Amino acid sequence: MRDVFVAGIGSTSFGKHIATPIESLAVEAAARAIVESGIDRERIGALYLGNFISGPLNGKEVLAGIVGERLGLGNIPCTKVEGACASGGIAFRHAWIAIASGMCDAVMVVGVEKMTHASTAEVTSALNCAMDNENDGPSGLTFPGLFGMAWRIHASQYGTTREDIASVVIKNKANGLKNPLAQMGASLTLEQICASAMIADPLQMFDCCPASDGAAAIVLCAEPLLSSQARQNKIRVLASAQTSGSPRIANHPDLCSFEATVTAAQKAYEQSGLKAKDIDVCELHDCFSIAEIIDSEDLGLVPRGLGGKWAAEGRTGMQGDVAINPSGGLLAKGHPVGATGIGQIYEVVKQLRGEHTNQVANARIGMTHNLGGTGVACTVNILGRD
Amino acid sequence: MRDVFVAGIGSTSFGKHIATPIESLAVEAAARAIVESGIDRERIGALYLGNFISGPLNGKEVLAGIVGERLGLGNIPCTKVEGACASGGIAFRHAWIAIASGMCDAVMVVGVEKMTHASTAEVTSALNCAMDNENDGPSGLTFPGLFGMAWRIHASQYGTTREDIASVVIKNKANGLKNPLAQMGASLTLEQICASAMIADPLQMFDCCPASDGAAAIVLCAEPLLSSQARQNKIRVLASAQTSGSPRIANHPDLCSFEATVTAAQKAYEQSGLKAKDIDVCELHDCFSIAEIIDSEDLGLVPRGLGGKWAAEGRTGMQGDVAINPSGGLLAKGHPVGATGIGQIYEVVKQLRGEHTNQVANARIGMTHNLGGTGVACTVNILGRD
Repeated sequence: MRDVFVAGIGSTSFGKHIATPIESLAVEAAARAIVESGIDRERIGALYLGNFISGPLNGKEVLAGIVGERLGLGNIPCTKVEGACASGGIAFRHAWIAIASGMCDAVMVVGVEKMTHASTAEVTSALNCAMDNENDGPSGLTFPGLFGMAWRIHASQYGTTREDIASVVIKNKANGLKNPLAQMGASLTLEQICASAMIADPLQMFDCCPASDGAAAIVLCAEPLLSSQARQNKIRVLASAQTSGSPRIANHPDLCSFEATVTAAQKAYEQSGLKAKDIDVCELHDCFSIAEIIDSEDLGLVPRGLGGKWAAEGRTGMQGDVAINPSGGLLAKGHPVGATGIGQIYEVVKQLRGEHTNQVANARIGMTHNLGGTGVACTVNILGRD
Repeated sequence: MRDVFVAGIGSTSFGKHIATPIESLAVEAAARAIVESGIDRERIGALYLGNFISGPLNGKEVLAGIVGERLGLGNIPCTKVEGACASGGIAFRHAWIAIASGMCDAVMVVGVEKMTHASTAEVTSALNCAMDNENDGPSGLTFPGLFGMAWRIHASQYGTTREDIASVVIKNKANGLKNPLAQMGASLTLEQICASAMIADPLQMFDCCPASDGAAAIVLCAEPLLSSQARQNKIRVLASAQTSGSPRIANHPDLCSFEATVTAAQKAYEQSGLKAKDIDVCELHDCFSIAEIIDSEDLGLVPRGLGGKWAAEGRTGMQGDVAINPSGGLLAKGHPVGATGIGQIYEVVKQLRGEHTNQVANARIGMTHNLGGTGVACTVNILGRD
């Protein structure tokens, strides 16, 4: 397998784009990535598109082909991949495979979702397509309910407090204020968080990511195709791992850990030859405040059980041991589901180039973590600046 | 890229499986393929699942992960791919890439759809997700309307008659009678076809494939993993090509040809070093009777404009120049959308092994052709017996 590089990146803002068709969001992000890459469209050999619920929410499928045509990419293979909230990460990994294997020299990967036009009931119902509805459906659980249970268990097992968990919200919302792409940055106090509406006890409104519209795109390439600009700040994909875990909640031995994350992180560390302590910046899947705590432990960035304490002590903040979600994460940047995994890579690339509006000092190694459903699908990527 | 072989195949019948959950259909087909392959589950390194509209019709996504868990495949990457009616073929190509590139030694690919529980309005609306609804939606076209227009143009350009087109229906329905997996085999006369309900003038009921439930699965592997039984009748993937075409009807210069098919066939012939005349048997995408005629010309199996005449003369029948759709095709075997592309490969493998219930004499080279939407996505595979 040969080395794969980031040739260009593009993104829409995350938020409400009610008047914009979903394919137009994808095209906007993708066109920006192509222009930045300086690579001729004719050199792009494949397109992967990550999307989760455009069928139920927008009545649109075959988005890969539709976006490929709009971009003028010709008769190349255009493939949509789906793995719930990990759809974007899975799309990225397939673009990486296409180049690493030598099949293509440049590949477009774009993630997109459009949700805010739909009612809360429609969005909840669509998101629940990511559950094992045949088995877990009768329980009546939704994702806030699942992560609410995880919070209770984490609190009971490790003594994690409401204050610990609120510190994740305060950090990510503050980071979001510094990210022009973010939907919901905010300067929040513990009191405001505790006063917000109860969603699924103990999860309150500010503990939950919003529904979002948006798209993000990356052009990946083999080394010879890198533009002279990209060569000055060469971003290499050091690892791209994808795993699965049980879709059934009852099959998880511990709701405070997702096996798919643990195994994907192991693979990514092995592939890159790096260790958790080498990671300078990580964009991880904080669909809920408690999720960031669990993810940071599963990825090995924080010792087991200490995710809440580390957040409270600022050790996952901008000047901490590892900067987690300087973009604002899903909580503040937003969560246009199929776009999220690509948006994370966009953010990490900006960090590694040293050009982020919320820059982590001396960031050379970045990680992204994208988790789908009840931990049914996961991708972990590690990128590095040469 | 290394050679890829068929290790095992499995399928449900195509038809009505109203009481069976969609994931159970996929598991049934996949489990059969694993057992036939003789390969330990632990050796399977990835799962690809082709599905089109389980979201809108069944409220279920992340089917790849759900099916992977049911099969006991562990933490391997499980990926759903979607490309409308070509979803199955695209899944197969990605399984092929995973082995050809050396990433995996064995890969499971399964296609599935479940449609018959839904109303005609729900199915039509879901199938229309494969159109470019932003641009073509206002025209009010559905797929029968599109192929009805194609028929009119073919008739006008090439003199193709109702009788020519009915001969495709008569052939495929008769073939379906000999296939135990087929949903709607029948012994039909021209009179019966002409008396059937008008769907979208000039397409009548028997010119249209049914809505179907079903699943089909293949285990692909590298040569060392082939069982002793598979070695006795070694089936090699000689080519696997995927292309895109315009999703916009107005962008097709000619509705009697799909650019995605023409380019995919070119690539498949190049990759295999074979020519159209080398193909003994072909399972192609006859979603409508007229589609078989167009496809057979686009694939180069029949001279341009003569698809109808060749069918009428029996040259695409069991003893013809090339046997097209001996399984009964979509018209008679059925069209569980995401399963169709894998079901075609299942049928061709049976032919190449010489064990089909409607066997083409001395079949050594087989082709499959799977077309999505308005020609937006296409895969063409060529398989051969050593």
